[in-house]
Amino acid sequence: MARARLYGRVVLVRISQGHATVLATESDHPAADVLREALHTGAWCADRDEVGDAKVPVDDLELLAPVANPSKILCVGLNYRDHADESGVQAPAKPLLFAKFPNTLRADGAVVEVPSDLSGELDYEGELAVVIGRRASNVDADEALDHVLGYVPANDLSARDAQFSDGQWFRGKSANGFCPVGPVVVLAQDVEDPQALRITTRLNDQVVQDCSTAEMIFSVAEIISYASRYMTLEPGDLILTGTPPGVGFARKPPLLIRDGDVVTVTVEGIGSVANRVLVA
Amino acid sequence: MARARLYGRVVLVRISQGHATVLATESDHPAADVLREALHTGAWCADRDEVGDAKVPVDDLELLAPVANPSKILCVGLNYRDHADESGVQAPAKPLLFAKFPNTLRADGAVVEVPSDLSGELDYEGELAVVIGRRASNVDADEALDHVLGYVPANDLSARDAQFSDGQWFRGKSANGFCPVGPVVVLAQDVEDPQALRITTRLNDQVVQDCSTAEMIFSVAEIISYASRYMTLEPGDLILTGTPPGVGFARKPPLLIRDGDVVTVTVEGIGSVANRVLVA
Repeated sequence: MARARLYGRVVLVRISQGHATVLATESDHPAADVLREALHTGAWCADRDEVGDAKVPVDDLELLAPVANPSKILCVGLNYRDHADESGVQAPAKPLLFAKFPNTLRADGAVVEVPSDLSGELDYEGELAVVIGRRASNVDADEALDHVLGYVPANDLSARDAQFSDGQWFRGKSANGFCPVGPVVVLAQDVEDPQALRITTRLNDQVVQDCSTAEMIFSVAEIISYASRYMTLEPGDLILTGTPPGVGFARKPPLLIRDGDVVTVTVEGIGSVANRVLVA
Repeated sequence: MARARLYGRVVLVRISQGHATVLATESDHPAADVLREALHTGAWCADRDEVGDAKVPVDDLELLAPVANPSKILCVGLNYRDHADESGVQAPAKPLLFAKFPNTLRADGAVVEVPSDLSGELDYEGELAVVIGRRASNVDADEALDHVLGYVPANDLSARDAQFSDGQWFRGKSANGFCPVGPVVVLAQDVEDPQALRITTRLNDQVVQDCSTAEMIFSVAEIISYASRYMTLEPGDLILTGTPPGVGFARKPPLLIRDGDVVTVTVEGIGSVANRVLVA
């Protein structure tokens, strides 16, 4: 029940390559009833046989962003020391929180059309994102991971001119399509250690970020614990845990996204979210 | 149909003191079916007779915040020149946008319990808030008001220590309960001119803000037009249009919210949202 409200969509759990993965599809899709049945038989995970009963092949479904209408897309700034360094600022003493709205979400493969006056200095930020599965309020770090549904790659697209000229990062971070996530949420039970995952970002064919989540200043558990002191985290909420070094604006010369470029963010063992960006 | 999804609740339109007002109640309330019928007979407004048929007196309903689960609570900073001056910063050349999440919403009369480490420097900000009624993307200012459902008083509660020490205002602005709104949304058709409304904020019995929306740097229409260039505004989205001068942190000596204080924000002709604040 909670999940049905949470996503506003039918959620299907698929087993592939040893990982349970969560796919989302419109609730009025012909497969919806079958998928809904599959969902309701398990806790967060239907088994392979149940999914095998689906009458519509999974590959025929349009893949949507695997979170829909989260009440929060919470982001952490400067959470890798080398990224703080390249940005020319001190690493923060506690998690630096900021926000994106759900209009930013896009699925793997979706095209991102950048508003014309944000096109001047567009940058990628590959990140590990966390999907909350169980309400969290004032949770300790050592219990925080119990509240995680799973993990998904995300791209915290950033218009640097708006981000820095406003001072408040929000406008440069929250335009339509500025948060591609996907292709699927890998359940927490299938991720051995969220602090030992390789994150790679590619701009077209060039590897531009390549780092491990071991380098985070504040771990996933610490971020959840910290945020939950201030705001109740709800199932379906998404947390972007910060980007490693290698962003475009900090390079000499800067390497910015141009019209037609494809940005691909890969998190080891989870998947890749790839999006073509159209810059007016 | 759109409205049902939008609020996730039943919406009742009540006529009182010459204003149409929108109340929200839980959809499983005994009055829900009656209210739903009343709603579906009108566009945005059922007439007095239809509401009179309701079998449960309106006064028996628990009043909730008149927006529920908005996809965005968009805020504008420093939108009154005298407030920018008292804050010691230049008035911005374009609307300065920032974000709150729906965990901040509270109804008129609800108690706000402030997280313990945000209790040091808690401040009020009385504001006129706008509820979007029709999707808005790239709208011109002269059409922007056609996308407004109505108006409601709001209190942009702000923990100044977190707001300023983070640099990003988000954490100090988006704790649970930091956005009381209410008591009702007055429909746009009943607000002659949103730029000619008196806003008064009281801390207990003391008037601490008293200004007119005529003093806004960017009008409601300009804010909607500007924001809609970047992000599609959806029905139910809330926009806080900035606070006038008189905030507590800028006073000499500072006047901050203490445990048990009641903050009341009144917008002329619309209503008052009053909340007791508990500071640990």
